[in-house]
Amino acid sequence: MPSMDPNTWHVAKGWRFAAQSCGIRGDRDRLDLAIVISDRPASAAGVFTQNRVFAAPVRVCRERLPADNVRGFVACSGNANACIGEDGYQDALRMCVLTADAAGCKPDQVLVCSTGVIGRRLPMAKIESGIRHAGPNLQHSSAALKDAAQAILTTDTCIKVSTKLLEIDGTDVALTAFAKGAAMMGPNMATMLAFVLTDAGVAPAELQNIVTSAADRSFNAISVEGHTSTNDSLIVLANGGGPHLRGRGLEYFAESVTSVCRDLARAIAADAEGAKHLVTIEVEGLRTNEEAQRIARTIANSPLVKTAIYGADPNWGRIVSAAGYAGVEFVEKNLSLWLGDTLLYESGRPQPFEANEVSAYLRHNREVQMRLRFDLGSGRTTFWTCDLTPEYVQMNADYTT
Amino acid sequence: MPSMDPNTWHVAKGWRFAAQSCGIRGDRDRLDLAIVISDRPASAAGVFTQNRVFAAPVRVCRERLPADNVRGFVACSGNANACIGEDGYQDALRMCVLTADAAGCKPDQVLVCSTGVIGRRLPMAKIESGIRHAGPNLQHSSAALKDAAQAILTTDTCIKVSTKLLEIDGTDVALTAFAKGAAMMGPNMATMLAFVLTDAGVAPAELQNIVTSAADRSFNAISVEGHTSTNDSLIVLANGGGPHLRGRGLEYFAESVTSVCRDLARAIAADAEGAKHLVTIEVEGLRTNEEAQRIARTIANSPLVKTAIYGADPNWGRIVSAAGYAGVEFVEKNLSLWLGDTLLYESGRPQPFEANEVSAYLRHNREVQMRLRFDLGSGRTTFWTCDLTPEYVQMNADYTT
Repeated sequence: MPSMDPNTWHVAKGWRFAAQSCGIRGDRDRLDLAIVISDRPASAAGVFTQNRVFAAPVRVCRERLPADNVRGFVACSGNANACIGEDGYQDALRMCVLTADAAGCKPDQVLVCSTGVIGRRLPMAKIESGIRHAGPNLQHSSAALKDAAQAILTTDTCIKVSTKLLEIDGTDVALTAFAKGAAMMGPNMATMLAFVLTDAGVAPAELQNIVTSAADRSFNAISVEGHTSTNDSLIVLANGGGPHLRGRGLEYFAESVTSVCRDLARAIAADAEGAKHLVTIEVEGLRTNEEAQRIARTIANSPLVKTAIYGADPNWGRIVSAAGYAGVEFVEKNLSLWLGDTLLYESGRPQPFEANEVSAYLRHNREVQMRLRFDLGSGRTTFWTCDLTPEYVQMNADYTT
Repeated sequence: MPSMDPNTWHVAKGWRFAAQSCGIRGDRDRLDLAIVISDRPASAAGVFTQNRVFAAPVRVCRERLPADNVRGFVACSGNANACIGEDGYQDALRMCVLTADAAGCKPDQVLVCSTGVIGRRLPMAKIESGIRHAGPNLQHSSAALKDAAQAILTTDTCIKVSTKLLEIDGTDVALTAFAKGAAMMGPNMATMLAFVLTDAGVAPAELQNIVTSAADRSFNAISVEGHTSTNDSLIVLANGGGPHLRGRGLEYFAESVTSVCRDLARAIAADAEGAKHLVTIEVEGLRTNEEAQRIARTIANSPLVKTAIYGADPNWGRIVSAAGYAGVEFVEKNLSLWLGDTLLYESGRPQPFEANEVSAYLRHNREVQMRLRFDLGSGRTTFWTCDLTPEYVQMNADYTT
């Protein structure tokens, strides 16, 4: 899990942060706008929601990335700027213009993200005022990073920050990453946003490969309820001057980007709305990694599996049968299943086990594990999800327009 | 909705019913075994779960169907006879042998179904005794049909029966159908089972086409939580002697089978565990019916849409964004959306509407409608689902082994 202590964070060189309360949700005390700016042009690449219905800021970012001259981004929470047509696009562009003024760069050097309610115009007067106030406060510090990480939250109960200091070819390289997300999506809450900043030098095309691969093994391997947001965005920005990373140094850097993304993805699953359990699903022995991930995702999205975990019920039949409708070819005797360390089902046959002990394992641990082993190949995956609780239902029912 | 009044039912000629309390769940007062027998051999065809993990009775039925000499079936509730390997298959065959003894036919003329807990051996001594007791009580009556319809229930709150009397070429033809289902699946509850009996004469190959088409437009067009059962079965049996239906008479018969199946499917969605709303989703204007159904199913399975309906929240952003991740190509301006009679979203733009009025519509009606209109073609579908409530979560969490 990411560290919550700013004193332990590594803040990548040349990056400055500011946060502001604009009152987007009508609450003047809550930080709801973040600006992040590099002292020098950065390479940037991103991956975005696969939803056919995507928010205006996603359109702006897609048009601009990958790129080699990005100076930073502005992000607001409380309003997703989604599903309102051309007006939303113009508002997103305007946020870039205002941020460019504050940072002293060109508008097309700025990226933009939003998260929150779908289908409402942004309160642009408030946002304009917010950006103007935030601009002069940009700072290179853990405290400023913490405020920026706070400003992008919606229903999250805590900030999500993960940092790393690498030594590559005798030089220090810092990775500074933060994210928000508590449901994969919801008009009142909405969306996963994640940003990885570094002071390494990486070419845009290489950065695109790195971010795509990292997303597959982190944010694409979590699921709260399977509802894909209109706004999901993962953006990586590298402002390092001088020689670009290459060869083994680049590989090490790529693995480290994946590692901070996995930290943040697990933190999102653990902080899911109303969740009482973080569930790690290990699936192995399929013909391909993709088959393993399809099975893991189907189990993760089954409300019957999720309610069983909430109820501390070692209900292996729900897990086995969820695997069975994932669209992957297998027969029952290919499959064995563990909950924690307990073997419940081996090669297609139920095993005797102490239900009370497994139930106690589920009841007393916030982080629990299930493992499915097939005998069909070497494809494997690790996937994270959460349980489904009455609190989740109530939180998502009690939104009122 | 199906009629609950046995006096209005049409019982197909030559079909007899019996029900018995075996104590499969340890409850001696609850009917849990049904036998249905035709006086003469019947054509029979079925469609079954697409789950790779399927119960032993499904294996037996698949081996025997389609067929032209079926005399009937035995069904038990409280135990799914699933996921226990070869023993379960032998138990299912044994149920056919015992029922054949009671009915005076051969074992391979009998079909078998089960629904209930996954992963436990059937209590065969209890079931054997139950079948022996039920055999002599087989009766052609609405009262006996009602008991049989009761005996297959699990967490259902009411029986589901739909009947029709058709006149085809000057002859009366009765359709007598009953079903169970309250979650699409769950080890403690489990499964959709549905049976359609008729006194018409239909060849097995034709019956197979009819049941496949009927399933697509009824039971495959409902979803409670998207978890496909190990035991889902729809079986149609036609015991009519003499000339087989052909031409327009056969078409009318086929449409009528679909009609009773749709009645039962809607009754299942309406009786879903913990549900407070039956939601009809109309999707039209896609390139194909299949695209329309994919969008409807994705919306029906979204926990965020389902919790919004529970909360009487006219949260159109959740519906639009669920459509967006169904894997169907479209852009926002292709789409318009109504809740009840209120247009919320037209050609990609939110419309002004009275939130209080739409919220009242959702709050005061148990049956509610959403309609999505695309401008991409003439493909369309009607789909039924229910809302997601804290009661659903609690019911499915509180199962203990």
